Amino acid sequence: MAALRLLLAGFGNVAQRFVEILADRQDYSGLAGFDVQVVAITTGSHGAWSVPVGLEPASILEEYRAQGRLPDKIDTLNAVRTLDYDVLVELSPLNIARKGEPAISHVREALLRGRHVVSANKGPVAWAYRELQDLARAKGVRFLHEATVMDGAPIFNLGRHCLRGNKILRLDGILNSTSNVVLCEMERGLSLPEAVKKAQAMGIAEADPSADLAGWDAAVKLTALANALMEADLTPERIDRHSIEHITMEELVSALSRGRRIKMVCEAERVDGTVRGSVTIHELPREHPFARMEGAGSVLRLHTDLLGKLVIAEDEPDLSTTAYGVIIDLMNLADR
Amino acid sequence: MAALRLLLAGFGNVAQRFVEILADRQDYSGLAGFDVQVVAITTGSHGAWSVPVGLEPASILEEYRAQGRLPDKIDTLNAVRTLDYDVLVELSPLNIARKGEPAISHVREALLRGRHVVSANKGPVAWAYRELQDLARAKGVRFLHEATVMDGAPIFNLGRHCLRGNKILRLDGILNSTSNVVLCEMERGLSLPEAVKKAQAMGIAEADPSADLAGWDAAVKLTALANALMEADLTPERIDRHSIEHITMEELVSALSRGRRIKMVCEAERVDGTVRGSVTIHELPREHPFARMEGAGSVLRLHTDLLGKLVIAEDEPDLSTTAYGVIIDLMNLADR
Repeated sequence: MAALRLLLAGFGNVAQRFVEILADRQDYSGLAGFDVQVVAITTGSHGAWSVPVGLEPASILEEYRAQGRLPDKIDTLNAVRTLDYDVLVELSPLNIARKGEPAISHVREALLRGRHVVSANKGPVAWAYRELQDLARAKGVRFLHEATVMDGAPIFNLGRHCLRGNKILRLDGILNSTSNVVLCEMERGLSLPEAVKKAQAMGIAEADPSADLAGWDAAVKLTALANALMEADLTPERIDRHSIEHITMEELVSALSRGRRIKMVCEAERVDGTVRGSVTIHELPREHPFARMEGAGSVLRLHTDLLGKLVIAEDEPDLSTTAYGVIIDLMNLADR
Repeated sequence: MAALRLLLAGFGNVAQRFVEILADRQDYSGLAGFDVQVVAITTGSHGAWSVPVGLEPASILEEYRAQGRLPDKIDTLNAVRTLDYDVLVELSPLNIARKGEPAISHVREALLRGRHVVSANKGPVAWAYRELQDLARAKGVRFLHEATVMDGAPIFNLGRHCLRGNKILRLDGILNSTSNVVLCEMERGLSLPEAVKKAQAMGIAEADPSADLAGWDAAVKLTALANALMEADLTPERIDRHSIEHITMEELVSALSRGRRIKMVCEAERVDGTVRGSVTIHELPREHPFARMEGAGSVLRLHTDLLGKLVIAEDEPDLSTTAYGVIIDLMNLADR
């Protein structure tokens, strides 16, 4: 595998876990020969850093954790445009209100310069997939995004390498952790606000969970899947989206007493030559493949013309799972 | 994709479904450019056929179904050794008593002649994996076997393409359809013989179901997975194997009344630098990812060092699913 020089845009939990794995790389036999070097890191409000040549990943983390910020000042867009690197690793937080910006601009500028992009940020895949893939192709580079849906579970790689010859007719699944944790806790008797508080204490729900509860995060992920796996050209606004905010603890407990569970279900389907998507609140029978999903797990079912139905589930994901999504993309790039 | 000339060894249900898909290829947009030609078919007791050049797949089936057998007489080993073809597609039935023979000899002879092999027969993967892979490598050809476990669900392709960088520490799953159908029917109040009869009527259990009930088929599949995905060098005899033949309907119904299900669980694990396998009868809590498996479905869970736990399940597989396992292998060969 070729060596790759990385520009990390964003240095939150996933980025730090990624650098931790690089620091502990000798613990993972599968990473032998995986040769990447972090040449720069940018953040929104915690500074930036042109990492000194040869500095070890462990030292990068040490420095950041000691200072609480990075020593330089360059902003991400400038860094993307001017620094020297092989791959932009887009790890900045998703901004739904700004329809995926500024991450889309970061990705576009990197591709325009003929640099590969690995994105863990869902925005570019949900709001600008066709444009960015076409641009990558025109420039002879790649735009990969395994970590955007179901953390690092290899959904997009599965679609690319393991379903050849199939047409995906429909896909459905449970894709948003926060809403699933909240629904599970409400089944145990908590009110919605109590369940949200618990999900926050578990480190799963964000300080403002409204985008998760209202199905926005699910709609963004569903759009990413439909665009990449079903050749759709959707944006999240076009998803028929429903919220769990009106669901009561009583409804959940009553469903459970009848052997059923209420879940937020994402679905994309080919209808009359186009792909339509929905995020709806469904009462599922207990034997349904989605009914068993607990907590932060997620599940996706692919309905194909040749292979039939394939279900992929991720149980108890953690930060390593998402960081792995970035690693598999980088490995695929290093092979070229 | 390059054109491939195929020798089909075996012409049972899966082989016929494969040829049917070739005949209906225009119905599957994903098969555009998939260019294979069946040049010969051999069977154990239904004759053989050097298919006339240019004969359409539909006509092959018509001929076979009209005559109930094929017109020529060459046996498989001779055909493998003397006919001209690019890929041996090994579709003969698994023979457990003969430890995978004669399929292993078919595969070995084809590889020795520098021909690719695609096997839907589990025997060669369970009893001669290392030898055959080493031979394929030495000859510069490939030995692929996607259809051997979980029908055509792309388990081996997933391991090859989608788990890069991971080490598989453990894998477990439900892999034998017959025993699972039988256990499900016994939960509904049937005795073991009644449940077996029902599974036979459904077309799932064989006339002699003992290899399935005793865990042999599961042990063979587990061995194939451990050899291919965990670099093991196992044979099915070395699996710690348990039967469902002593399980009673009362035990199953009692477990169910406590919200639990009894399942035949396959497991392979790294212990002290080696891989150990077992097929055991487990009582699983209802929320366990294997507990929901109904009927002929199968499920596999991979425990990895980086990605964590990934569950792949196949619901309601049919002959097309298995035939697809052969197709994806051929597509990968055609790309070379």
